[in-house]
Amino acid sequence: MRSVAVVGTGLIGTSIALALRGRGIVPHLLDADPEAARLAAGLGAGVVGAPRVPVDLAVLAVPPQHIATVLREQQLRGLAQDFTDVSSVKVRPQREAAELGCDLARFVGGHPMAGRERSGPLAARGDLFHDRPWVLTPAEGTGERAVERARSLAELCGARPVVMETARHDRAVALVSHAPHLVASLLAARLLNGEESHLELAGQGLRDATRIAAGDAGLWTDILSSNAAAVAEVLTEVALELNAAVAALRDLAVAPPAHGPTGRAHLNDVLARGVRGRALIQGRTDLSLSGAAAVP
Amino acid sequence: MRSVAVVGTGLIGTSIALALRGRGIVPHLLDADPEAARLAAGLGAGVVGAPRVPVDLAVLAVPPQHIATVLREQQLRGLAQDFTDVSSVKVRPQREAAELGCDLARFVGGHPMAGRERSGPLAARGDLFHDRPWVLTPAEGTGERAVERARSLAELCGARPVVMETARHDRAVALVSHAPHLVASLLAARLLNGEESHLELAGQGLRDATRIAAGDAGLWTDILSSNAAAVAEVLTEVALELNAAVAALRDLAVAPPAHGPTGRAHLNDVLARGVRGRALIQGRTDLSLSGAAAVP
Repeated sequence: MRSVAVVGTGLIGTSIALALRGRGIVPHLLDADPEAARLAAGLGAGVVGAPRVPVDLAVLAVPPQHIATVLREQQLRGLAQDFTDVSSVKVRPQREAAELGCDLARFVGGHPMAGRERSGPLAARGDLFHDRPWVLTPAEGTGERAVERARSLAELCGARPVVMETARHDRAVALVSHAPHLVASLLAARLLNGEESHLELAGQGLRDATRIAAGDAGLWTDILSSNAAAVAEVLTEVALELNAAVAALRDLAVAPPAHGPTGRAHLNDVLARGVRGRALIQGRTDLSLSGAAAVP
Repeated sequence: MRSVAVVGTGLIGTSIALALRGRGIVPHLLDADPEAARLAAGLGAGVVGAPRVPVDLAVLAVPPQHIATVLREQQLRGLAQDFTDVSSVKVRPQREAAELGCDLARFVGGHPMAGRERSGPLAARGDLFHDRPWVLTPAEGTGERAVERARSLAELCGARPVVMETARHDRAVALVSHAPHLVASLLAARLLNGEESHLELAGQGLRDATRIAAGDAGLWTDILSSNAAAVAEVLTEVALELNAAVAALRDLAVAPPAHGPTGRAHLNDVLARGVRGRALIQGRTDLSLSGAAAVP
């Protein structure tokens, strides 16, 4: 793969372009906002504007709701031979692209599992994808060349390509990313009702638990809407457990702890399962943070 | 204040003792488990066993459910002239201590706002409380000397003493610590139902959002049970909002986004409030973490 175009020079698009520049490829940069494309070019991410002949691969780095329309438009325009995207939802854009009559032999879904809570080209980093999974979701009819080029893209960015079926991908990210994001937002939103003296007691534990809630609200509305069924499934289970925990706490609030063994046992079960669940994703990145204070 | 005893040589008790050793005080270390006290002494935190004459201040570093009984026992024994505790709940222990007939003129509630998700004396650090708030909750009838000694203790540990009414303290920690802990546990518990290929996509965002869920389940059962009413109040609001968000997602799952402006507007409102709430606790500690990856 020798030539690439990036459509959408936000955080992810610009980070990909910067990574490619580090590997000797000069991407063509396009954005609905010409200023964003110029800004990315100014950061050394490539050259502004479409190529004169189709590039090998175009990366659609736009929100999930716009993938299908941008793919259709750029295929008609002949921007690239093959296309991939980077959005965090795969089923709905793939279906919408089919409905719009896109050439799906020349498109493969992609999702680099990296990001930051800041957005825009100024937050971009060429090493953002280093050693991160980069999911590829070839569907029935996806051409081999498109898959291979998207795989090369992932590798050029230092990521680990992982092939996954579209619906499985969407269920996975609902569990590990989309549902946690909404829950973190709900927790953070509660702080708007807190008195100032309450917030002065906030520590690193709360900051970590709500950090992802700082992400762009518009983009996340789009992500959650596009993966609504899978996210609703995870959150329905969380809601059932939360309602049960609230009931247990209300029991304990009226009865002294010694008389509330059922409520205590219920809470202990939830907390113990939380400890076990957390252990499943204990990563090496935790080690460097182990000195951070959690506030009991 | 010249002499101190620490009852309970877990993470917090041992960390306090280590901080005092750094300021020239050699604490007396007591623990229901003699091995834990010896371990703390072996770490240089003080000397094992009760003093021959009452010390100035005894620090009760035991779970909230045991504060009143340990206070009663150690007052009868004459361990110290004044007492304080370090537990994260203040109303119920204070009430239980009154019911047990403790001398409440010689006791003031305390809560250093620091901790780690690891527990036990081996996780202790003398600088754990450095520049952290240390809440003191004098009640009607609390003696001035007890308050001053607890204030000295906080300052010797490098913390910032903050005086707060007991019920206000409990509402504050329900909001910024106890409710978030339970929610993080519910999120982490969901991972037990995830397939292995799902968990491979977990990134730093999820690790941060669930880090506090790794805390000791038994201790947290005690904390949540002891502050059940205040925690239930916060979580009831979270549950209402979560149920509404799930309903919005279910609407969006059956209708295309273009036809679901109400559901989208609802999600956007939740997410935007989350961004604003998170901004209220943006701390300097975030800066060093700003490069950590959030996975959209």
